[in-house]
Amino acid sequence: MSFRERVPEYSRRIEKVLDRWLPAADKPPPRLHAAMRYAVLGGGKRLRPLLIYAAGETLGVPAERLDGPAAAVEMIHTYSLIHDDLPAMDNDDLRRGRPTCHKAFDVATAILAGDALQVLAFLILAEDPSMTVLPAARVEMIRSVAVASGSTGMAGGQAMDLAAAGKSLGLAELELMHIHKTGALIRASVLLAAQGLPGLAVEKRTALDRYAKCAGLAFQIRDDILDVEGETTALGKQSGADAALNKPTYPSVLGLEESHRRARDLHHAAVDALVPFGEAAEPLAWLSEYIVTRSN
Amino acid sequence: MSFRERVPEYSRRIEKVLDRWLPAADKPPPRLHAAMRYAVLGGGKRLRPLLIYAAGETLGVPAERLDGPAAAVEMIHTYSLIHDDLPAMDNDDLRRGRPTCHKAFDVATAILAGDALQVLAFLILAEDPSMTVLPAARVEMIRSVAVASGSTGMAGGQAMDLAAAGKSLGLAELELMHIHKTGALIRASVLLAAQGLPGLAVEKRTALDRYAKCAGLAFQIRDDILDVEGETTALGKQSGADAALNKPTYPSVLGLEESHRRARDLHHAAVDALVPFGEAAEPLAWLSEYIVTRSN
Repeated sequence: MSFRERVPEYSRRIEKVLDRWLPAADKPPPRLHAAMRYAVLGGGKRLRPLLIYAAGETLGVPAERLDGPAAAVEMIHTYSLIHDDLPAMDNDDLRRGRPTCHKAFDVATAILAGDALQVLAFLILAEDPSMTVLPAARVEMIRSVAVASGSTGMAGGQAMDLAAAGKSLGLAELELMHIHKTGALIRASVLLAAQGLPGLAVEKRTALDRYAKCAGLAFQIRDDILDVEGETTALGKQSGADAALNKPTYPSVLGLEESHRRARDLHHAAVDALVPFGEAAEPLAWLSEYIVTRSN
Repeated sequence: MSFRERVPEYSRRIEKVLDRWLPAADKPPPRLHAAMRYAVLGGGKRLRPLLIYAAGETLGVPAERLDGPAAAVEMIHTYSLIHDDLPAMDNDDLRRGRPTCHKAFDVATAILAGDALQVLAFLILAEDPSMTVLPAARVEMIRSVAVASGSTGMAGGQAMDLAAAGKSLGLAELELMHIHKTGALIRASVLLAAQGLPGLAVEKRTALDRYAKCAGLAFQIRDDILDVEGETTALGKQSGADAALNKPTYPSVLGLEESHRRARDLHHAAVDALVPFGEAAEPLAWLSEYIVTRSN
């Protein structure tokens, strides 16, 4: 059975895990908790959790040990979407096929829901009993997620994105922005599966990191392509949003054809990096293929 | 020498620690890092760090082991001020005697600066080498700060605060809001000093917690009183802001005189709680007195 056939099972799994960690919608303050649940449980590809579970299969780590990290990373990702969609940022009305959090609730509640989801991620990493790792490994995981999310990671990438609106960037600057904005958390996701495995050979850890870097960048190129080629209905968010905000993207810097080629090349490089794992890496190889062929 | 005389030394100490943890203002993305530095290094009473150092003196924990927790809590506190001041929240223009972060920069940068400060707090707790505690204690500290900051702590309190604008609350509801909004992080601050001390008697831990609860609530009552009685210049923020937003406060619910009495009573209860520590608790007793007599 290929990983692709197990995706629906993992998708159900992560929904349950996310639901369990989110406070009940009637727990005070109810509006905040309702907004957190609305944003997190409103669909989404769950790519980062899937990357964690896929890396876990490749490394032989049981899924229950990865539920916590998967939920934590998805909380961080969702908080970043809520804040990026705010009127002062990208001002998006549509996300995952539904009104954005600040449209469904209000701006203040959306800001707080993002804040509370970010901290929930660290709470999960600090207390999830199923992770069954030594406290030192738990600390290391918290550190990785913090670095990937902070001012020199995801939040920094969003700041670079805002600063780039209306400017023309070179390819190197564009890549730097995306390595921060989406690459850092994707990379951290893959590596989280390997933390708490002190016996893992350095060669394999390096291979995973190389895979994650390539797949992360390929993801963003595909995202930029879909913003041009995709339909709003399939995307679940407004297509053409980058152009409307006059944001530099891979298609605007490289052209569409070259962007497609670059995404493909990165996919091949990601798969090549997996050689040390042999056939056990099929889940990660499949996800890399999915990343560059997805339609939303 | 009393704790009061050591406050200037601790104030210099925490400024240095905060400065060291904040990314340099020219490190990319520079605007984000400048905003983080502006907000954190813009003065402030540093009450939470002082509570941590004072609790450390009471318990015999060296200050260098508490620099990390003190910085982490102040990062969280500052992020909450940045977000609470936003136009969609309390819409304040003045904070710590200067333009608020979104006035000095812009709303998007202020949102991201808050986000990045929150995650920096967890990074500090995860990696500060001076803390010299076992990884399990580090995890426990991260968990405490996460609980105190999240949707059932500080962020939840801010949501309750927003929901209360224009409503008339009873005393119990008002207290519940403040126990979340300011009480949770103050309580966590005091208890952080005691984490990593497995030998501490339960009686003393309970006493510290009781002190922290009383001092935290007294702090908020004093805050509400100052919003009525204080001058904008001394406060460093707009006085009368609560009334302008039609927010329920202790003076609006209890009247000014009764609010003063309640703050005093809580101060006495806080000091009474310190009995098990004897004279070693002078720093915490002094801070409690300061909390109910301060003019900003």
